[in-house]
Amino acid sequence: MENGSKKWGFQADKDLNAASAITVRGVLNELIESLNKQDQRPVIPLGHGDPSAFPCFRTTSVAEDAIVDALKSAKFNCYAPTVGILTARRAIADHLNRDLPFKLSPDDVFVTLGCTQAIEVTLTVLGRPGANILLPRPGFPYYEAVASRSNLEVRHFDLLPEKGWEVDLEAVEALADENSVAMVIINPGNPCGNVYSYGHLKKIAETARKIGIMVIADEVYAHLTFGSTPYVRMGTFGPIVPVLSLGSISKRWIVPGWRIGWLVTSDPNGILKNSGVVDSIVSCLNLTPDPATFIQGALSEILENTKKDFFLKTTSLLREAVDTCYDMIQGNPYITCPMKPEGSMFIMAKLNLSLLEGIKDDMDFCLKLAKEESVIVLPGIAVGLKNWLRISFAIEPSALEVGLGRMKSFCERHAKKQ
Amino acid sequence: MENGSKKWGFQADKDLNAASAITVRGVLNELIESLNKQDQRPVIPLGHGDPSAFPCFRTTSVAEDAIVDALKSAKFNCYAPTVGILTARRAIADHLNRDLPFKLSPDDVFVTLGCTQAIEVTLTVLGRPGANILLPRPGFPYYEAVASRSNLEVRHFDLLPEKGWEVDLEAVEALADENSVAMVIINPGNPCGNVYSYGHLKKIAETARKIGIMVIADEVYAHLTFGSTPYVRMGTFGPIVPVLSLGSISKRWIVPGWRIGWLVTSDPNGILKNSGVVDSIVSCLNLTPDPATFIQGALSEILENTKKDFFLKTTSLLREAVDTCYDMIQGNPYITCPMKPEGSMFIMAKLNLSLLEGIKDDMDFCLKLAKEESVIVLPGIAVGLKNWLRISFAIEPSALEVGLGRMKSFCERHAKKQ
Repeated sequence: MENGSKKWGFQADKDLNAASAITVRGVLNELIESLNKQDQRPVIPLGHGDPSAFPCFRTTSVAEDAIVDALKSAKFNCYAPTVGILTARRAIADHLNRDLPFKLSPDDVFVTLGCTQAIEVTLTVLGRPGANILLPRPGFPYYEAVASRSNLEVRHFDLLPEKGWEVDLEAVEALADENSVAMVIINPGNPCGNVYSYGHLKKIAETARKIGIMVIADEVYAHLTFGSTPYVRMGTFGPIVPVLSLGSISKRWIVPGWRIGWLVTSDPNGILKNSGVVDSIVSCLNLTPDPATFIQGALSEILENTKKDFFLKTTSLLREAVDTCYDMIQGNPYITCPMKPEGSMFIMAKLNLSLLEGIKDDMDFCLKLAKEESVIVLPGIAVGLKNWLRISFAIEPSALEVGLGRMKSFCERHAKKQ
Repeated sequence: MENGSKKWGFQADKDLNAASAITVRGVLNELIESLNKQDQRPVIPLGHGDPSAFPCFRTTSVAEDAIVDALKSAKFNCYAPTVGILTARRAIADHLNRDLPFKLSPDDVFVTLGCTQAIEVTLTVLGRPGANILLPRPGFPYYEAVASRSNLEVRHFDLLPEKGWEVDLEAVEALADENSVAMVIINPGNPCGNVYSYGHLKKIAETARKIGIMVIADEVYAHLTFGSTPYVRMGTFGPIVPVLSLGSISKRWIVPGWRIGWLVTSDPNGILKNSGVVDSIVSCLNLTPDPATFIQGALSEILENTKKDFFLKTTSLLREAVDTCYDMIQGNPYITCPMKPEGSMFIMAKLNLSLLEGIKDDMDFCLKLAKEESVIVLPGIAVGLKNWLRISFAIEPSALEVGLGRMKSFCERHAKKQ
C-alpha cells in the first residue's frame, strides 16, 4: 500500500492520445518546441489560420461593442437552450439566406462553439459501428481525429491539384458503399485555398445524391475570397441532397477565440428531419457544452450590422498577401505551387526534395526551418499530403515577406551542390 | 430515386437520444411543455440552479468590467492553448490554494467550458471497456448521461438522508472491484444541499484509497454555504488519494451562461501524472472546444478582485431563502424534508403520496403542478430518487413564497378525503 506500489483502477486512454496526436495543434506544438530560443529574431507564424494578433487584422468595433452591450444588459448571464438562443438562430438563418435560393428558418440552425464543435457534433451523430465517411485529401485533420473517436471509418478521396484542387468525383463514387454516411468538402479550401465553382458544387451534390450520402460543407472561410470565382454556398444544392453547413465568425470577423459558430441543415425536402438525424443533433447538443450566452446574445448585431468596409479591408489585405506569397514562392526553385489561392488563408506548395541536401521529408524540413530560421510552417503530412507544405499567408504583409525570405535562405543553405 | 423513397446511408443515433433524455434539461423541457398557456400568473421556476435572471442575484460589476477590459484589449481574440491560457490557470491555482494545505501549480489546472465540460472530459478519459464508476444516488444525472457514452458502467451508492446525506461508505466498498476507476462526490451537494464535514471527507478519501480509485469532487457550489459546517475542499485529502476537483464561476458569481470552469488535479504524489491520466486529459482537451479566450483573459481579475460584500450578499439571500423554503415545507403535511440545507441551491423533499389522491408518482405530481399552478419543480426520479422533489430555493424570496404557496394549494386540492 505504499504510494509507489499501490495498484490503482484508473489508467491512461491511449486511443485519446493517438487521436489527439494527429491534430494540427499537436504538430504545431512539436514545431514550437524545436524553436531556437537563442535566436533573437521574431518568430514568423505561417503555421495556422489566426491573424488576430496582428493589429492590421483587428476585428471591427461593431463586434466588440455588440459583446459589451449584451454583457452589460445582464440578460445573458443565464444558461442558454442547448440549441442556441432564438435571436442567434434567427440571425444565422438570415445571414445564410442572403446566399441561398430558399429560406432557412431558425429551426434549421444550431449554435455551436465555433466550427470545431459543429464538426464534433456532426461526426458524433453520424457515427455507428461499420459506418464510413469520405474525407478530402489534403484536408483538415480534426475530421480524422474526431472520426476515430466516433465509430466512423475514414476513406479518403483526392483533391486534384492540376484541376484547381477539385474533388475527384470518380474516386468518391468508387469509395462509397451502403455504409457511407457523408462526404466532407471544405470551401473555400483549407489547406488549398481553392474556391469551387457553382458547376463543381452541383456535381458534388449530384454524386452524393446518387450514392445516398449527405454533404458536410465546412464553410468556416465563407466569403474570405479574393479571386475570380464567385463564392457559392453548398446549401444552394440542398434541394438535390441534404447538406449540413458548418460555419463560424472566427475567420471572417478574425475572432477565433470568441468560439461561436453554427451547424445548419440545408434540406428543404426534410430528409434529415424525417430520418431522425435532426433529433440526434439536438440530443448531442444536450450532452455537450454551449457557447457563452452573452456572445450568442451579441450575434445578431454582429451579423447584421458589420460594415462592408471591414470585410473589404480584410479581403484586400489577404489579396495583397497572397500576391506576395505566390510571387515569392515562384521565386523559390525549391518549392512549387500548382495554383494561386482564391480564398481562405492558406497555400499548398510542394517541396522539391531532390534539390535539397540532408532534408528527409516535409516534417524534417519544418523542424529544421523552425530551429534555424524561427519560421513555423505546417508540414503537408499533417493535412494528408506528404512532402508538401501548408503556408498561411494571413499575417501582416511585412512579416510574411520576412518569413518567406528566411525560408528561401534556408533552402539555399540546404541546396544540393551541383 | 424519388425523394420519398431514396435510401440514404445515414440514420438517427438512438444511443445519443437515450443518453440525452435522462438529463435535467430533458425533464425540465417536458415540464415546460405541460405549462398552461392560459394561466396569467407568472411561472415560478424552482426547477434549476440559475438565479441569474433575478435582479437581486445580478453578478458583480467587477466581473463584468473584467470581461469588457479583456475584450477591449484585443489581446484575447486569438485561439487559446487547449489547456487554457497561463494567467487563467495560475489564477485558478491561486484561488484554490487559499483552501488547501499544499500548493497547486498552474500545470495542475485545466480551463474548461464550465463544470459541465470538466465532467465530460473526466469521464471520457476514464472510460474503457469493462470499467465502472461509482456515482451518488441521488445525484446529478449528467454524470450518468456522459458515462453511458464513455464506456463506463454506472454503480450507485446511496446518500443517507438520516445522516445528513453522507455517503454510504460501506456500500462504496461493496460496489467496487478491480475495474472501478473513480467515485464522485458533489459538495456542497446537488440535489441535497448537504455540506460534508472534514471528518467525512477524510473517510471518503481513505475508502477510495483502500479500494484503489480516485475521487472526483464536483465543487461547482463551492463556498455557497450558509449553515454551521465549514466548507472543506476535497483536494485537502490529495495526499491520501488522487482527487480531480471540478468547479466553475457559474454558481458563486451567478453567471452560468459565461461558461468557464476548471478541472484540477489535487495529487501531490503525482499518481495521476505517472499513470498517464494527465496526458490523456490534455489529449481530450485537444479534441474538444475551449472557453472563449477573452473570458479566460478576464478570469484572474474576477477571481482575485471580487469584493467579499458580493459573496456575503449572495449567501445572505440564500440563507433567507432556505429559511423560508424549509419553514414552508414544514408547514406542508404532504411533503417532508429530512434536513435543512447548508449549501448549494437545492432542497430534497419527500412526497407523502399516501395522503394524495390521483397523483401516481413524482413525475405525475410535477407535470400536474406545472399545468395547474405554473410552478416548475424537478421530480426526484430525474436525480435518482423516485417520489421525491428537488426544489431550488435560489430565486427572489417573494417569488419563492408564491411558488411554495401554490404548491401547498395544489396539494390541498389533491388531498385524499378523510
